[in-house]
Amino acid sequence: MAQPKYLTGDTAALNEFLDKFDTFLLDCDGVLWSGDHVFEGVPETIKLLQSKGKRTVFVTNNSTKSRAEYHAKLTSKGIPCQVEDIFGSSYSAAIYIARILKLEPPRNKVFVLGEAGIEIELKSEGIEYVGGTDPAYRKLGMAPEDFEGIASGATLDPNVGVVLAGLDFHVNYYKLAHAHGYLRGNHVSAEDKATAKDGGKALFLATNIDSTLPMYHNFFPGAGSASVVALSNMIGEQPLALGKPSQAMLDAVEGKFQLDRARTCMIGDRLNTDIQFGVQGNLGGTLAVLTGVNKKEDWEKPDAPAVPAYYVDGLSDLRGAASS
Amino acid sequence: MAQPKYLTGDTAALNEFLDKFDTFLLDCDGVLWSGDHVFEGVPETIKLLQSKGKRTVFVTNNSTKSRAEYHAKLTSKGIPCQVEDIFGSSYSAAIYIARILKLEPPRNKVFVLGEAGIEIELKSEGIEYVGGTDPAYRKLGMAPEDFEGIASGATLDPNVGVVLAGLDFHVNYYKLAHAHGYLRGNHVSAEDKATAKDGGKALFLATNIDSTLPMYHNFFPGAGSASVVALSNMIGEQPLALGKPSQAMLDAVEGKFQLDRARTCMIGDRLNTDIQFGVQGNLGGTLAVLTGVNKKEDWEKPDAPAVPAYYVDGLSDLRGAASS
Repeated sequence: MAQPKYLTGDTAALNEFLDKFDTFLLDCDGVLWSGDHVFEGVPETIKLLQSKGKRTVFVTNNSTKSRAEYHAKLTSKGIPCQVEDIFGSSYSAAIYIARILKLEPPRNKVFVLGEAGIEIELKSEGIEYVGGTDPAYRKLGMAPEDFEGIASGATLDPNVGVVLAGLDFHVNYYKLAHAHGYLRGNHVSAEDKATAKDGGKALFLATNIDSTLPMYHNFFPGAGSASVVALSNMIGEQPLALGKPSQAMLDAVEGKFQLDRARTCMIGDRLNTDIQFGVQGNLGGTLAVLTGVNKKEDWEKPDAPAVPAYYVDGLSDLRGAASS
Repeated sequence: MAQPKYLTGDTAALNEFLDKFDTFLLDCDGVLWSGDHVFEGVPETIKLLQSKGKRTVFVTNNSTKSRAEYHAKLTSKGIPCQVEDIFGSSYSAAIYIARILKLEPPRNKVFVLGEAGIEIELKSEGIEYVGGTDPAYRKLGMAPEDFEGIASGATLDPNVGVVLAGLDFHVNYYKLAHAHGYLRGNHVSAEDKATAKDGGKALFLATNIDSTLPMYHNFFPGAGSASVVALSNMIGEQPLALGKPSQAMLDAVEGKFQLDRARTCMIGDRLNTDIQFGVQGNLGGTLAVLTGVNKKEDWEKPDAPAVPAYYVDGLSDLRGAASS
C-alpha cells in the first residue's frame, strides 16, 4: 500500500494538496482541540481554507453536544461556521431513527445512555426518549428493588424499541443495568414477546464507538469503552454505530451539500473512524493529523484499519501553503 | 468430543457419579442461588453431599463479598460451611498481589474498581488501596478540574502500581477515568517514567471477567462488562484475571486442601469460567447445571469454550442418588 505523503513544511506539496479539493470534512476532538484547549493556529487555518473558497464541514463523533452547541463552541473559539456545516453523531443517530427505522408505536421510544446532545437531536426529530440526563438515572448503587424491577420489567418502560448508547459522563451501573434489561426484552410481556420482532428485544444502536476521547492533552474513556463495549459484552452482539466510519453519516453530508466526493478530503486523527470513513466513502483524499489519538506507527502496522493519503503534524501546518 | 452425560432422574448414573469424587468445588451465583433467592433443595443437597463424606468447597468469581461475608450468606441460607471452604476471586486477587507480585514501594498501592469484598481481602493481606468504596469516588459527572487533575496526574496517587477491576455496583465515568489514568501512567512523573518498568503504567488485574451476573432470575452487568472490558477497550490490552478459569485460583484451593484432582469435580453454570476451570485444571470431572448462564445448546456449538462431562437441570437433582 502507498505510504502517506507528509506535507508539513513542504509548500509545493501543500499547494498541490489544497488545489485538489473543494470541501474539507474536519473531525473536531484531536484535530481542532483537546477538550477546551484549541490547538495553536487552528482558527487561522480554517479561515485560510475558507478564504481560498473551500467549504469546511465539521463531522464529529462526539455525541455530548448538539449541532447548535457545537456551533456555539466553534464560533466562541474563533472558528467561523454555520450550524448547517456541523454533523454530529447524535444528529446522525436521530436522523437514522426518525427517517430510516421509522419505529412503529407502541415500541417507538429510545432509551438513551448519553448527554444532552443526544436528547436535543432526538427532540428535533420528534423522537421520544427515556434515560439520558433524567436525574432519576443519575444514581449510584443498586437497591434490591432496582434489581427486581429491572428483572421483572416492572420499572422499565414497555414502549422502548431502541437503546442508543453514546458518550455519557454520568454512566453508572444503574443505567447500564437498565439498558441491558431493554436489550434483553425484559420490558416486553410474555404474550407480546411471542409475536414481537426479535422477541421484544430493543435494537442496539450507538452514536459512535471511539474507544477514547482526547481531552486536556490526554485521553479519557470514549463512548465505545464506557458504554458501548460494556453492553456489547453483556449481550454478545455489536451495535449499529451511526458515527464515523458509518457511511450513514457521509450520506447525510452528501445529501445536504451535493458533494463531489472526488474533490472532498476527510481530515482526522483516528484511523478506525476518520480515515476509514474517508477511504470507505471513496473520498478524493484523507489527511491525518498527529495531534490526537493515532500516530505514524499506527498506520505502518500490517493490521492498520486504514491508511491516510496525506499527513501533517497538526492542522495548522496547512498554513504553510502559498497564499493565493 | 464426547457429549456430557445427563444425570437428572437417573439413580444409577447419579450413584456412579458421586462415587467418583471426594471433593466438589461449587460455583455460587447461578448454582446455589440467583441473587438472594436460593434454588429449591440446594441446602439439602449440600448436606447430602457432606453426609456422604464429600468435601464441599465454594469457589466464586463474585468479588463483591469477602470470604467472611460469603460464609455469613451461606450459613444464613442453611448451607453448612466453614470460612476455610470459601474461595472468592477477591481473595485470589489479594493472594496474587501480596504473595506473587510482591510490589516494591513506592508504587505498591492498588486502585480498586469494586465493592467492599475486595477491600477486605486486600486489607487481610496488608495491601494498601485507594478508590473502592471511598465516597470521594462515588461521583457522577466530570468537572473541568477532574479532567485536568487526571490528565496531569496531579489528583492521582503517585504510589499506585496496580489497577484491580472487579464487580462494582457503583462504577461510573469518574472511576473509569481514574483507572484509565493509572493504566496510562499519568500519575508517574516524567523522570520516573524513563526508568520505571512499563513506563510507570499500573499493572492491569481483574478479579474476574464474567460478562453477566445471574440475579433475581435474570441477568445483570457482570464485572467483565461493567468495568473490565471498558478498560481493556481503552488501553487495547487484556488484564490478568485471577478468578475462574485462572489456574491461580485452583492452585490456591489445592495448596490449602492437598486436593486429589482426579477425585475432584467442579460444579458450575458457566462454560467459559467454571467448566473451563475444571477442564484446564485436569479435574476428574465437571458438572454443568442449567440454572444459570449457559444452556445445553451452548456446549453443542463448535466454538464452545469448554464442554462439561456431566450435567443436571439443577444442583438439587443430585438428591436423586440412592441414600447411602
